[in-house]
Amino acid sequence: MRYLFIDTQMALMLATLLFLRNRCLEKFHPQRPLQMELLSLPALNRMAICGGTHGNEMTGVYLVQEMARRQKELGDKAWPVPIVLVLSNPRAMKECRRYSETDLNRCFTSSILSTPISDSSPYEVRRAHELNALLGPKESKEAIDVLCDLHNTTSNMGVTIISYSPNEWISLHIYKYLKMKMTSVPVRLFMVNIPINEAYSLESVGKNGFSLEVGPQPHGVLRADIYNYMKEAIELAIEWVSLFNSGAVIEGGEVETHMFHKSIDYPRDPESNQMTAAIHPQLQDQDFCCLKPGDPMFLSFSGETVCYEEEDSLYPFFINECAYYEKGIAFHLARKTTLKIPSVKVQRD
Amino acid sequence: MRYLFIDTQMALMLATLLFLRNRCLEKFHPQRPLQMELLSLPALNRMAICGGTHGNEMTGVYLVQEMARRQKELGDKAWPVPIVLVLSNPRAMKECRRYSETDLNRCFTSSILSTPISDSSPYEVRRAHELNALLGPKESKEAIDVLCDLHNTTSNMGVTIISYSPNEWISLHIYKYLKMKMTSVPVRLFMVNIPINEAYSLESVGKNGFSLEVGPQPHGVLRADIYNYMKEAIELAIEWVSLFNSGAVIEGGEVETHMFHKSIDYPRDPESNQMTAAIHPQLQDQDFCCLKPGDPMFLSFSGETVCYEEEDSLYPFFINECAYYEKGIAFHLARKTTLKIPSVKVQRD
Repeated sequence: MRYLFIDTQMALMLATLLFLRNRCLEKFHPQRPLQMELLSLPALNRMAICGGTHGNEMTGVYLVQEMARRQKELGDKAWPVPIVLVLSNPRAMKECRRYSETDLNRCFTSSILSTPISDSSPYEVRRAHELNALLGPKESKEAIDVLCDLHNTTSNMGVTIISYSPNEWISLHIYKYLKMKMTSVPVRLFMVNIPINEAYSLESVGKNGFSLEVGPQPHGVLRADIYNYMKEAIELAIEWVSLFNSGAVIEGGEVETHMFHKSIDYPRDPESNQMTAAIHPQLQDQDFCCLKPGDPMFLSFSGETVCYEEEDSLYPFFINECAYYEKGIAFHLARKTTLKIPSVKVQRD
Repeated sequence: MRYLFIDTQMALMLATLLFLRNRCLEKFHPQRPLQMELLSLPALNRMAICGGTHGNEMTGVYLVQEMARRQKELGDKAWPVPIVLVLSNPRAMKECRRYSETDLNRCFTSSILSTPISDSSPYEVRRAHELNALLGPKESKEAIDVLCDLHNTTSNMGVTIISYSPNEWISLHIYKYLKMKMTSVPVRLFMVNIPINEAYSLESVGKNGFSLEVGPQPHGVLRADIYNYMKEAIELAIEWVSLFNSGAVIEGGEVETHMFHKSIDYPRDPESNQMTAAIHPQLQDQDFCCLKPGDPMFLSFSGETVCYEEEDSLYPFFINECAYYEKGIAFHLARKTTLKIPSVKVQRD
């Protein structure tokens, strides 16, 4: 009887755990099929590549300009997929600043895009409406099929794909393809995981979309190594879209992803709110390396080490990103997760 | 007779070469004693340390603020030499930009400082006059004894002392001291070599002065490693000034220096004037390493390598400095020279 009692209790516990796990999975990935079947998805007829969304992130600016030269020269033969090239924030590019009045890459929520423009709207809000008209409208049938937005970071993040949804299979497949093909630089995926209407970045205007974040590179500077990584990543993304459109069955499988957990600010003086420490040299440039309890996190200006005190080991990234000082972010923390993605092929009419 | 004729010719040539060499030395170093005796120089009673002359070069900003905290806490006991701490360009610091209206560190020529301020004078020109009143006046008896101005660069230049005169023994001695004492980072000297009245940078306001340029660090970012290098360099400079004031005889000798030769611009499209290439990956981060004829210099956006074609091997530095894009400078070139500096001791009244 004693054993039977324990068995029943354990069976109940296991059933409860299984139920909770499935609810949890549904909550995070509401459309995620538990069986990873072969999915037929619409053809990707038009792709947009955008640079200069932040006007001082130089690789995208120069790469889009170079692609425009190629397109002018070769016309339809430039790439196997029709590509729309966009320089998103010309005013900020001219000033070589991230933005002119407000961060353009926070202006693409459904709320901002549905609020009428007025005379007092910041330049970037007006520009967001223009880009939404050109490449969207967001969440409409007319929206561009794939939107790739090019960014740089001062953090040592190699090539990072940023996606806002764990159910957007096209971006996840492109990430899988880049990770397999690019051997000279680490390739990772950062999953923001927010609903499409709350997604604030330019890529959320496309039916499918991702940011390509490449670093480390100082803002306002163009490095040939970073330029070549981004060029290779774009060429591979175009190659994947072309392969998909050809009708090939593209195998799914498991992809490693970094799910956003939370942001950490710099230590500050409680009165003046001024920073009192910098990223610790042992954490600097260690993006996507595991941060364990007790590891050095900050070094104060007078020489004291501040350690990481959380219970969980997590994965820091965007460590010491220049543009995040004003946002009060020293780095983000992520949990590493494995996602299953289905095999895909193009839907024939 | 034939041999005698050649000997006479050679003797004449040698004499001419020797004469030209000496004239050349006099031209470049008009006050340089050919015999390196022991020089008695006035005591260095006041020293200024300035940060934020460029508002987005963060190390100087945070270091001067930290030194101000120490000075507030310890008063006269903070350092063995009275130190004036200055944040040079508060408006640019607030905007986290190099400058607000014009580059402050080009405003300290005698000509600009002697031209009266008007309502239309740029902010930085007005600020240059204020700083000249506080720390100078330039070339006067009242000027501060040693002025050290703190800068960052996106170039891989380690710790670089910038001096405008090969006859300013104090800065050369401080360089020699730093080079001997700092073991974790390369220490070099860049000699601008221009007359004091034409010297345009803040340090030229002091009786003796130098810039301390530390990198690589993206502008707008603070790295703990770079902070620690600059902190160590300043502490050693203060230590040297204190040692000098104590009456010790400080040995001279030879110091290796990089004499400015010329600047190289990026390759550009002749019609649009737009850049068509980036610094070649083999040249990137190789500041102060010898550039030989035939070495890769630029990589064009379409993939072609542009090589260095000059006859002389020279030393590139400020390679891919962010702030020099607008000045049309991809890097500077220097000749490496050895300077002899005299032993020095403090002049007793």
